[in-house]
Amino acid sequence: MQLLLTEAALARLGPRLAPVARDLDVVTLNRDGVFKRNGEAIAADTVDPEIFWLSLDSFPTGMMPALFGKVLQGTRGRWAQVFSAGLDNPGFRAVMAKGLRVSKGSAQAIPIAEYVVAHAFSLLHPIEPARAAQAAGEWKRLSFTEIGHSRWLLVGFGTIGHEIAKRLRPFGAHLTAVRRSGGVEPSVDRLAQPADLPALLPESDVVVLACALNDETRGLAGEAFFGAMKPGSILINIGRGELVDEEALRDGLDRDQPGHAVLDVFRTEPLPAGAWQWSHPKVRVTAHTSNGGDGTLTRGDDQFLENLRRYLAGEPLLNEAARSEVGL
Amino acid sequence: MQLLLTEAALARLGPRLAPVARDLDVVTLNRDGVFKRNGEAIAADTVDPEIFWLSLDSFPTGMMPALFGKVLQGTRGRWAQVFSAGLDNPGFRAVMAKGLRVSKGSAQAIPIAEYVVAHAFSLLHPIEPARAAQAAGEWKRLSFTEIGHSRWLLVGFGTIGHEIAKRLRPFGAHLTAVRRSGGVEPSVDRLAQPADLPALLPESDVVVLACALNDETRGLAGEAFFGAMKPGSILINIGRGELVDEEALRDGLDRDQPGHAVLDVFRTEPLPAGAWQWSHPKVRVTAHTSNGGDGTLTRGDDQFLENLRRYLAGEPLLNEAARSEVGL
Repeated sequence: MQLLLTEAALARLGPRLAPVARDLDVVTLNRDGVFKRNGEAIAADTVDPEIFWLSLDSFPTGMMPALFGKVLQGTRGRWAQVFSAGLDNPGFRAVMAKGLRVSKGSAQAIPIAEYVVAHAFSLLHPIEPARAAQAAGEWKRLSFTEIGHSRWLLVGFGTIGHEIAKRLRPFGAHLTAVRRSGGVEPSVDRLAQPADLPALLPESDVVVLACALNDETRGLAGEAFFGAMKPGSILINIGRGELVDEEALRDGLDRDQPGHAVLDVFRTEPLPAGAWQWSHPKVRVTAHTSNGGDGTLTRGDDQFLENLRRYLAGEPLLNEAARSEVGL
Repeated sequence: MQLLLTEAALARLGPRLAPVARDLDVVTLNRDGVFKRNGEAIAADTVDPEIFWLSLDSFPTGMMPALFGKVLQGTRGRWAQVFSAGLDNPGFRAVMAKGLRVSKGSAQAIPIAEYVVAHAFSLLHPIEPARAAQAAGEWKRLSFTEIGHSRWLLVGFGTIGHEIAKRLRPFGAHLTAVRRSGGVEPSVDRLAQPADLPALLPESDVVVLACALNDETRGLAGEAFFGAMKPGSILINIGRGELVDEEALRDGLDRDQPGHAVLDVFRTEPLPAGAWQWSHPKVRVTAHTSNGGDGTLTRGDDQFLENLRRYLAGEPLLNEAARSEVGL
């Protein structure tokens, strides 16, 4: 039974892999496109794995296409653990259409939640006015609305939404989460439906887009959405660029709806030179890097190892994707 | 039995005061120095209260000296509720030396904790590098140490320290609190003694000065303290300016020990024009305003009302100061 993972992932896993994967034929890929077994290069056409670990490091290093290629061209693939939380990339649909099981990652939920909270706090708390007063040499008393009095709207409530909610809880901020599936969630003050958005947006100080991209959510944040936002509020998009109608956002910012946009994702990535977001005074641009915490790779490896153990023991996989998530 | 409070405090309390203070002779002071009863001006020499509510609004409006004057010159004073958490102002010593009971405030602990967390996060998370990359039009992946991997040292562990710890807990940051009195504190990972500081400072990413100012803590953060700090770490002072040797801090910043200083308090306040802190690139100056949350006044009034009820019923006061706290 062959396992394919990146050379970097194998190096990180080190001695932790052996006890779980004793009988596996472990094959690696490096960023030069070379496949190896036990550190020795092997011919690409001898590689036809049953199991794949598509770890986060394969993304910025450009190894994704080669890994996807092996998944899609192989004959023996059965299961792929992926680092992504969202499966909107059409490649995942192709993988599942081919019959492989796919289990998703949540290792990035923690740094993404930290990104959301840190950026929101840095705008909610009067840090920028204080910097301006300091620059002017002005001893100025600044009154402020406490974070505990802010109202947050989490659009989408998966792993990332839960990690955000958990961190906000002790501040006493009011939390509403929106998701289709309803249910009960003790970690938020209110669980609402997408149809409630027009009523919720006018009273929300921070709106976080943390939902999956699919046919129902594409362009969700458009003209009507921004028109309903509270003036001066903060929009944070750590979901997908296509959740947002970027021209409608630009118009909204001109009306202070929202007052700030913190954007980690864009319709076109990398964000093209000259795109208006780069220089807009109310926009913060980050390079799809909210997941870049120093714990992400290790947590991802932990999730892979646990699911590998489960796969080999015939137990249910954690966080396995349903075919409906990719429209199958 | 006469009660003196500010006109603003009476307006805020409104109908909430009457049920508790039915039989009290309620006298107010406004920012023009006029005493009133039932909205009618009365002669200052007829005012000799038993009870005082020295609310936060009396401080920025300059009414503190007049209120202290009434406390110290009166003949009937028995109890003063004060907004301050720290009693280092020599006036409090004089009040207690005269025999009045003093109960302290903690209404400001929440906004001060928010100040500490918001400033620290805005420096721990790569917001400034991201702003620089954006300004340069650079699509740049930024890896970062997760907040959950940071180590915090709370020097002093009173109400403010507890509010900070409570908010940091779900991030998974490592918390050490230092206080003389020892004991057990489930809200931190470690409770240490002042003598442990030299060993704790080199491993702390964020150091918060949140202790009382007294003969043992004056100048606590001096040459040795900064010399032991972790390079690049963050110092936040929301205690008192005199906790810090300001010249030693300046020298420390030159060596990146600490890498940033967030200062809400100073030896001389307002911070004089031309003071080096105003223009130092590694220093954030705020105007003793970390307490300026929009909930502070109301929470202070709540504490006063509860203690007033207790005082009139002969029950123990909440947060009553010991004479030893002011060196008596």
